[in-house]
Amino acid sequence: MDELIKYGEKFFDELEIVVQRGRDVSVDVELNEISMASTRTNVVTIIRGIKDKRIGIAIIDTADKEEVKKAIESAAKMAKLNNPDEKWHSLPSPGKYREKPKVNEELKEVSPDKLVNFVLEGIKLAKEKDEHITVAGGSAGASWVEVGIYNSQGISVTQEFGHSHIFFEFVGKKEGVVTPGIFEFDAKDNLNLDVEGVVEKGVQKVQWAYKVKEAKNEEVPIIFGPWATSGLLFYTLFPAFSGERLVKKTTPLADKIGESIASEVITMYDDTFHELSIAKAVFDGEGVPTRKTMLIEKGVFKGFVWDNYWAKVYGTESTGHGQRDWRGGGVSIGLNTVVIEEGKKSLEDIIGEIKHGYFVDGVQGAHSSNPDNGNFAVTANPAYLIEDGEIVGSSVFLIAGNIYELLKQATEVSKEQRALPAMYTVITPYIKFENVKIAGKK
Amino acid sequence: MDELIKYGEKFFDELEIVVQRGRDVSVDVELNEISMASTRTNVVTIIRGIKDKRIGIAIIDTADKEEVKKAIESAAKMAKLNNPDEKWHSLPSPGKYREKPKVNEELKEVSPDKLVNFVLEGIKLAKEKDEHITVAGGSAGASWVEVGIYNSQGISVTQEFGHSHIFFEFVGKKEGVVTPGIFEFDAKDNLNLDVEGVVEKGVQKVQWAYKVKEAKNEEVPIIFGPWATSGLLFYTLFPAFSGERLVKKTTPLADKIGESIASEVITMYDDTFHELSIAKAVFDGEGVPTRKTMLIEKGVFKGFVWDNYWAKVYGTESTGHGQRDWRGGGVSIGLNTVVIEEGKKSLEDIIGEIKHGYFVDGVQGAHSSNPDNGNFAVTANPAYLIEDGEIVGSSVFLIAGNIYELLKQATEVSKEQRALPAMYTVITPYIKFENVKIAGKK
Repeated sequence: MDELIKYGEKFFDELEIVVQRGRDVSVDVELNEISMASTRTNVVTIIRGIKDKRIGIAIIDTADKEEVKKAIESAAKMAKLNNPDEKWHSLPSPGKYREKPKVNEELKEVSPDKLVNFVLEGIKLAKEKDEHITVAGGSAGASWVEVGIYNSQGISVTQEFGHSHIFFEFVGKKEGVVTPGIFEFDAKDNLNLDVEGVVEKGVQKVQWAYKVKEAKNEEVPIIFGPWATSGLLFYTLFPAFSGERLVKKTTPLADKIGESIASEVITMYDDTFHELSIAKAVFDGEGVPTRKTMLIEKGVFKGFVWDNYWAKVYGTESTGHGQRDWRGGGVSIGLNTVVIEEGKKSLEDIIGEIKHGYFVDGVQGAHSSNPDNGNFAVTANPAYLIEDGEIVGSSVFLIAGNIYELLKQATEVSKEQRALPAMYTVITPYIKFENVKIAGKK
Repeated sequence: MDELIKYGEKFFDELEIVVQRGRDVSVDVELNEISMASTRTNVVTIIRGIKDKRIGIAIIDTADKEEVKKAIESAAKMAKLNNPDEKWHSLPSPGKYREKPKVNEELKEVSPDKLVNFVLEGIKLAKEKDEHITVAGGSAGASWVEVGIYNSQGISVTQEFGHSHIFFEFVGKKEGVVTPGIFEFDAKDNLNLDVEGVVEKGVQKVQWAYKVKEAKNEEVPIIFGPWATSGLLFYTLFPAFSGERLVKKTTPLADKIGESIASEVITMYDDTFHELSIAKAVFDGEGVPTRKTMLIEKGVFKGFVWDNYWAKVYGTESTGHGQRDWRGGGVSIGLNTVVIEEGKKSLEDIIGEIKHGYFVDGVQGAHSSNPDNGNFAVTANPAYLIEDGEIVGSSVFLIAGNIYELLKQATEVSKEQRALPAMYTVITPYIKFENVKIAGKK
């Protein structure tokens, strides 16, 4: 790689070469049947070069030396045609990296057969637990990825990652009621997927959904499940932590460092090394070391996250939150693994203490939230009605509000935490909020 | 390939091997700059095998003989685990294929530089024509694909395809008005992209959009542009042509063959060989010959389209509309290249005859239409106000209606036709509809 960086320096003031190699195995389910098995491998090389503050990016799907040289030349031609970016400072330099955790070797060579067994077990268990249930869809998958980042400032780092997942969509049909699709999943950085736990939780929710209860307009305590929390925060709160938004004055948190923006029960940080994290990365998408970054400590906002570019524009340091866009080749600010700290009470106990309220498992429509001020309007679906400490049926309603007001209404975080791998991983407990206004059909 | 089919026959009653090899070159634009250039190649092999009516599908991303053998074994294991599909009849047999058109050889070896020139020309022309315009986004791309389909019923066909495209999103800022993003594009099965035409049309629309005119509730003549027509029909009308829906009784066209379902000005057929088609396929996704298939002739519904599976379930023949799902490996019914016949009048003349009405360039929200009955509710955006035969500003409004009622209100189709490559290609003129109810803000 040294040779290629040197070759690139003939054309550029600075350059970066990023190589990703991966292998993905997956098995899909449709209507209780295995619909297909696939095995795919991929290689991507991204060249990002800068000459006189002009940036050129080229992407190829090989790591072949001669092809990479051609891509360097192509990026150089492109850079020449662009205007200088006067805000450009420099590519990042090497930092102090944490020790790479060991990767589960099994994940490199998973066969579709292994995954088929997970899926068959899931289908079998679901039928055993409730004959009215269909596994309408789902998949089991295992991925292995190796990322290498090299630049002319001396960064030269590589890391391997491996993880597996299983997810199912269950639908129940009983006494004329067809439940909505109920999703459950597990994701781990090893192959010990908890298929039985996934099916148990899913079947439980389907059974709750057989009884439909209409919601009305009221103010009630609500427990947000991990899926709902992750979906809502992704579009309302997380963007507000971006340093780019601080520079561009589009975050409501601009003057809020040290101020309380949430209830004291909320502590939130970014840490790829959390036990439940499925990608324990020691560097970010441009080779900057990752570290534990406190975002909210007992309700108090602690600071922004940065990539190399925006940190240098602002005059601070990257916090290791440069997220690589594997399609476009560039880097933007993104969280790695958001953790909301767990509490001491079990979910069961939290539900048990609610006389009348709801448990919201999923939210729809969060993507049209406004991250500039935290306003949102979502449909809670599926949501489950709690009466006298027990779930007695399922419901659908609207919640419109502001994330910062909602965060102040949090009173409990469960001791159970779950990891949701989506755009980035969110590890969160179940969270109880008081006096949430909901709008039902009545 | 014979050897592999024979190998597969050890495990299956019937099997099919589909191989796709492709090369994609693309250059992206962001805010008047070239943001990246990429060159990617891919190979996908899909095995679909049937044993005792049990189906197994395996996908790998190589055509290596030993790997294909392993995939065959994997598909066989999978088939064994599934339940028999009692509706399964057989894979298709060879048919009479039209002569393959020649593929533009240039498209096999396009370099990013060639595409960069298209993009730079577009940016330069746009700035020359209107200094208030930014090319906010866009891309130029060239693809070459080779598809081979082989099965144990004797099908053994291959075809190459090549096409190129350019698209731009323009935004104008003038006197405090920021226009919405205005899209223009061109796509061809050669490299003669009409960059100047794309920019001219785009700039024209931006300039119309500088003047914002509020729409009110009224009934007016409306011209639907190709983008809007394609977007609306894709979700409301096209699914109704599916033979699967006829079998499942979810098409409103079930008893309508020979009946008038649209105005006499509407003639619609499927033909991959249309002059403007960018993929002149001689066979469909499972190797069945394509042919011109009349859908609506002078307003009269002519019949359904079929893939191999549903045709045999219904007791008819595939019309060559088996669409391969390259991710899931299976086949479902889909149109290939829908053509709406052009008329004699120019778009300019059609606009010239309207005293008060709108030209709708795009629609949003069509995906939530109901194909079971043709009901839709879309936002017309961008839409342009026509007063006394001239476009005088831009507007946004709602149109809620039923596609079959709308199609009866068509009175003109322009002589200009354009090809829109999306899920499948739609080649359509501008269409004028009378007395369309619209809902503005007033």
